[in-house]
Amino acid sequence: MADIRSTIDAYCETFTANDRERWLACWADDATMEDPVGTPLKKGKDEIGAFYDQGHKTAPEGLVLELTGEPVIVGDEAAIPMRVVVTMGGTKLTTPIVDVMKFDADAKIAAQRAFVDLSKLAPFSDSPS
Amino acid sequence: MADIRSTIDAYCETFTANDRERWLACWADDATMEDPVGTPLKKGKDEIGAFYDQGHKTAPEGLVLELTGEPVIVGDEAAIPMRVVVTMGGTKLTTPIVDVMKFDADAKIAAQRAFVDLSKLAPFSDSPS
Repeated sequence: MADIRSTIDAYCETFTANDRERWLACWADDATMEDPVGTPLKKGKDEIGAFYDQGHKTAPEGLVLELTGEPVIVGDEAAIPMRVVVTMGGTKLTTPIVDVMKFDADAKIAAQRAFVDLSKLAPFSDSPS
Repeated sequence: MADIRSTIDAYCETFTANDRERWLACWADDATMEDPVGTPLKKGKDEIGAFYDQGHKTAPEGLVLELTGEPVIVGDEAAIPMRVVVTMGGTKLTTPIVDVMKFDADAKIAAQRAFVDLSKLAPFSDSPS
């Protein structure tokens, strides 16, 4: 459980710091990613890394991923309430995200499904959402 | 989308109000429930109703289910950050929950998985969690 929580924290921190190598190290080699939910699965670190690159390329001014509540860890799975804050043209936009993840025995992400609707990006203020 | 959000709101409100009939009306007849994640599926309104009764019997002093963030609805699925606040012996305890739900064409809950760890119940204060 402690290890899973560490992976979750590293996942947010390294994504925000644009530390691609450490972010990819959160994933199992044969991991699957469904981000957003309803889109075709990405499989393995090459496809997941390409997704990462696309996101950071789209938002070069800044992309922050942060917890908005306590992750709920049950066995080898977790549901993680977060938000993304993206800076575009000097304006900060945000939308809520919930990632649902399954972890392997090394607390690496084996499967991820991301509940997110980027069409809902709205102006960000620091007040609690 | 609007209908799914209405079902989510009704799910919390009727659970909190202990309105069993209206709470069960949120579910499809052949719905499945995995609550908490990792336990055997409950199937249909009889088994789901029995789960409801057990919960309210365990906490007759009060059981509040409320959103802690915006539900993220993607297609016919949603992830819903919530908390339960349970009153026991005059003391309020809380723990975070994330429900992941799939809805049918009538916006009834077809399948639910509840991320919750009741061993994490902790004293409740009104400050943001």
